[in-house]
Amino acid sequence: MHLSEVTHPNQLHGLSITQLKQIARQIREKHLETVATSGGHLGPGLGVVELTLALYQTLDLDHDKVVWDVGHQAYPHKLITGRYDRFHTLRQKDGVAGYLKRCESSFDHFGAGHASTSISAALGMALARDRQGEHYKVAAVIGDGALTGGMALEAINHAGHLPKTNLLVVLNDNEMSISPNVGAIPRYLNKMRLSPPLQFLTDNLEEQFKNLPFVGDSLTPELGRIKEGMKRLAVPKVGAVFEELGFTYMGPVDGHNLADLIATFTAAHKLSGPVLVHVVTTKGKGYAIAEADQVGYHAQNPFNLATGKAAPASKPKPPAYAKVFAHTLTKLAENDPNIVGITAAMATGTGLDKLQQKLPDQYIDVGIAEQHAVTLAAGMACEGLRPVCAIYSTFLQRAFDQIIHDVCIQNLPVFFCLDRAGIVGADGPTHQGAYDIAYLRCIPNMVVMAPKDEAELQQMLVTGVQHNGPIAMRYPRGNGYGVPLMEEGWEPLPIGKAEILRQGDDMLLLGYGSMVYPAMQTAEILSEHGIEATVINARFTKPLDTELILPIARQMRRVVTLEEGCIMGGFGSAVVESLMDHEVMVPVTRLGIPDVLVDHATPDQSYATLGLTPPQIAERILKLVQPQAVTVS
Amino acid sequence: MHLSEVTHPNQLHGLSITQLKQIARQIREKHLETVATSGGHLGPGLGVVELTLALYQTLDLDHDKVVWDVGHQAYPHKLITGRYDRFHTLRQKDGVAGYLKRCESSFDHFGAGHASTSISAALGMALARDRQGEHYKVAAVIGDGALTGGMALEAINHAGHLPKTNLLVVLNDNEMSISPNVGAIPRYLNKMRLSPPLQFLTDNLEEQFKNLPFVGDSLTPELGRIKEGMKRLAVPKVGAVFEELGFTYMGPVDGHNLADLIATFTAAHKLSGPVLVHVVTTKGKGYAIAEADQVGYHAQNPFNLATGKAAPASKPKPPAYAKVFAHTLTKLAENDPNIVGITAAMATGTGLDKLQQKLPDQYIDVGIAEQHAVTLAAGMACEGLRPVCAIYSTFLQRAFDQIIHDVCIQNLPVFFCLDRAGIVGADGPTHQGAYDIAYLRCIPNMVVMAPKDEAELQQMLVTGVQHNGPIAMRYPRGNGYGVPLMEEGWEPLPIGKAEILRQGDDMLLLGYGSMVYPAMQTAEILSEHGIEATVINARFTKPLDTELILPIARQMRRVVTLEEGCIMGGFGSAVVESLMDHEVMVPVTRLGIPDVLVDHATPDQSYATLGLTPPQIAERILKLVQPQAVTVS
Repeated sequence: MHLSEVTHPNQLHGLSITQLKQIARQIREKHLETVATSGGHLGPGLGVVELTLALYQTLDLDHDKVVWDVGHQAYPHKLITGRYDRFHTLRQKDGVAGYLKRCESSFDHFGAGHASTSISAALGMALARDRQGEHYKVAAVIGDGALTGGMALEAINHAGHLPKTNLLVVLNDNEMSISPNVGAIPRYLNKMRLSPPLQFLTDNLEEQFKNLPFVGDSLTPELGRIKEGMKRLAVPKVGAVFEELGFTYMGPVDGHNLADLIATFTAAHKLSGPVLVHVVTTKGKGYAIAEADQVGYHAQNPFNLATGKAAPASKPKPPAYAKVFAHTLTKLAENDPNIVGITAAMATGTGLDKLQQKLPDQYIDVGIAEQHAVTLAAGMACEGLRPVCAIYSTFLQRAFDQIIHDVCIQNLPVFFCLDRAGIVGADGPTHQGAYDIAYLRCIPNMVVMAPKDEAELQQMLVTGVQHNGPIAMRYPRGNGYGVPLMEEGWEPLPIGKAEILRQGDDMLLLGYGSMVYPAMQTAEILSEHGIEATVINARFTKPLDTELILPIARQMRRVVTLEEGCIMGGFGSAVVESLMDHEVMVPVTRLGIPDVLVDHATPDQSYATLGLTPPQIAERILKLVQPQAVTVS
Repeated sequence: MHLSEVTHPNQLHGLSITQLKQIARQIREKHLETVATSGGHLGPGLGVVELTLALYQTLDLDHDKVVWDVGHQAYPHKLITGRYDRFHTLRQKDGVAGYLKRCESSFDHFGAGHASTSISAALGMALARDRQGEHYKVAAVIGDGALTGGMALEAINHAGHLPKTNLLVVLNDNEMSISPNVGAIPRYLNKMRLSPPLQFLTDNLEEQFKNLPFVGDSLTPELGRIKEGMKRLAVPKVGAVFEELGFTYMGPVDGHNLADLIATFTAAHKLSGPVLVHVVTTKGKGYAIAEADQVGYHAQNPFNLATGKAAPASKPKPPAYAKVFAHTLTKLAENDPNIVGITAAMATGTGLDKLQQKLPDQYIDVGIAEQHAVTLAAGMACEGLRPVCAIYSTFLQRAFDQIIHDVCIQNLPVFFCLDRAGIVGADGPTHQGAYDIAYLRCIPNMVVMAPKDEAELQQMLVTGVQHNGPIAMRYPRGNGYGVPLMEEGWEPLPIGKAEILRQGDDMLLLGYGSMVYPAMQTAEILSEHGIEATVINARFTKPLDTELILPIARQMRRVVTLEEGCIMGGFGSAVVESLMDHEVMVPVTRLGIPDVLVDHATPDQSYATLGLTPPQIAERILKLVQPQAVTVS
């Protein structure tokens, strides 16, 4: 059977190991070919090919449910659940999504772009199953990196307490999240990986037990406990933590040995209660170049399969915001030993790996643990450090309570740097940085700002590390504009001060962050149509520069706000609130991300869909302000 | 020395056990006397009297820092850090706060009203200390309930990975959070509590080891491992999990034996790296009535010390919102087996204990684990259940990402019931339910509603369990209005439909939730001054009933919005957005919680401070709409 013929995972039933190996090879080929062409996640999928095939051979996927933690490890799953034919459209507009989506396939039981959710979701399904008197199996597949996320541990605490609820947790242990993992749990898992295979030791131990002098019925209580403990040791150090927490532990299993995997899963399915199967995999398995550089090949732009090298860019690009951020933060940190950069398992994504290389003592990676990252920063700020939390907009959602409760209520100088704020492109709805303006500006004491370009990002970095209270800066994924970077002499920006970029009498365009340049371009288009706009770079959503904005707005026929964030409660909403509070009765049109989920596509495609390209914005404005249409009450 | 003379904890240095016992007795007396008179948290503080005294005798509090997880266990701390004289003002306006506050005392190193934050904060301080080359000690005191919160586990994962960072974690194990704890971790701790004292077993084990046949230098590798494992067993089962995670484990220690505690803490301070001291305490210790009912006496209204009975209310009160919620949900659940109520360790506070008594199979307590609660609910909703997450407004902040990522992006029918939305009174800024309208309405697919009274809460409950998507209802702490409750024949409300409660031509008062009745009262006062207001009960912030509201607003001189939530991005902001979107250019005044932290006080005092009593609102409106002041542009 060829992979292309597999449209339902139950077709794997009855295949021999040899046949499964062929399928595995075909999955890897298709996987590599697709990602090399379109870009996407490479290492995670390649690592779980055998795991997926073995698990699915032992399940009835018409009834059983598998929840994949972070869908980026689920490309093999996609290839055997009816999406082989469309797989070349991966992460493209209207194509196959890069993560799982309930609306994409009936085999995608739970979508996930963020880590650590799978055990909770799977347990919810298992409880529903039992409540409804059904008997299907539920499995969660979670990476060792995701396992350090607090909510995964909350779920284990809960599941381990439910001995009657059948639940299989498959731990995909590749020693990595995106970067090598951090923390005691990964170290513990690593110790397990190095342990001898399960079977050998248990057999041997049984023998040894027979020769122990105190084995028998006449044990003292404490010796009884020791014996019980030794039995537990039969699962060497391995699994003790999970066993103590109520799980039956099985493993470690070689995650690339189909026969072992099938045998283990088959045995696991016969057990009742919560079971954890520990599978040891190699990220990027089968593609030597990726195996050798697991960080670099976690996710990829298009590349040459033979060399592993990225396809050369058609022309040199301006530096990415993340790069400028990292470079500038490192310079600032060199001059201020109190500055500490904190990442939650996103060292390369945020650029903080640069800081780590230069100033390892001023760098902390807490692993996938955003909540802890923020309160850790609050603790540091109490003692005079200047913690800089570099966390994507979408991931900072997970630390919302900590931002309020630990940082803002105590008015502590923690600096939040939100990369990937706004449209993120191919990652789709789970990763859009749409909500941060709304969720941050409602918190007392918080300063909320966004730079118009990469040079202003530098200035805002200086501003943030000097500000004596909570402060947040958002900036987009991708590249800046190539404006001259500053190398020295940086001054902080005055908090809450905007700047006028263009003067015009007809209307006011208020741009925020990444929408300031588009605002300028829009103004040029409008000018061609006889509309002269004043353009203001707002810089701060909070505090908003009402001193500058209100008098200008008062003289205009219309105000248009532009932001790359949700318009429900966002920057435009702050502007409207302010105008109303001061009874400046001018019509305001708020443009940004409307109240919808934004699907995966290229950023440019998303902007076009949302009507946020400068020509589209100009057209929308012209419709509003053409004399015959103007009705200012 | 009498407790009243202790103004600095270092005065405890050198006191004998007998003297400390006297101080302990005086702390309990003062503690009981104060809480009996003013209300407050009873059990937690009484349980940690000896723990506090012993810990502080072994520390130099001029330099060392103790972080208390959830300040409600820190009343003894307050009594020996200079607040004895003012302690009778506990939880009263301008008096001693019920939780710790950095601004209240230099000994309050980190404030906390939410659980599970202390290890992160303390680790941040410890890392700052090391970075700055200082040498003070840092300790976190955390309850066993709080330990199941994900962020505490994230912090343990991080701290356990830092063998060079000295950090003491004191586990205050009373087998309770507010209710008995849930989960595998508490069960594990319980197993440890039942273990024999540490010393006995290690001694005994050493003896046993000598007699074992395989002890010696010629061990096979696996026997070596067993020996190592047995050594670990010297800390019986006890501590294995913490030891595996990199902590040195000490305990369990009797939390009411001062000599044992002092000896243990003294020994712990000599160790390097992360150390966990497991202290077993009794909640409510020393007050027999509280020891016997640990749930009931976690926190108290004023009561009679001799009988433990609450002081009789001066007059019978209308039923509390939480009670109506629980009663109604239970009725609905009786008729719909798919309804499942979920609480995160707040069974009594949310009233879900009523559901538990009646329908235990339709009730789940996940422990202090709001993130898991929400994604568990999402998993259940996937399989056709109707999960109802009853979580206080302030605590739901911790599941913000799960609401977005797991519920709303997948458009799953999870019903969020946010008790204690708005002003919460004596608990103060960490507990104010101020932000939920803002943080929920920015999420696509979410319906956001609030009832005007307890009967409408019943209708909204019906609405929520029938709605086929994410939906949230907020309602206040405290009592309803005593309106007739419905016992049958409930119909769901149409989603997004408001109701007109009063007609008037001069202005529009738009009330939301708990501010609808005050809006009506305000309208009556205004009427006495010749201003006739239309009053609308908005019911839904999202979707807002623009069909009803806009035409009315268009005819008014002014619109005033009233909400018990932050006005930055809240209900009023939604109204303003909507008016602007439709170019209804009428001045809007948004009244609610301004962009400040609201301190502890009675709710009535807070309303008065915020200008939210009906007479104050009327006065504010009159100033705006008196003819000479009206300037509608």
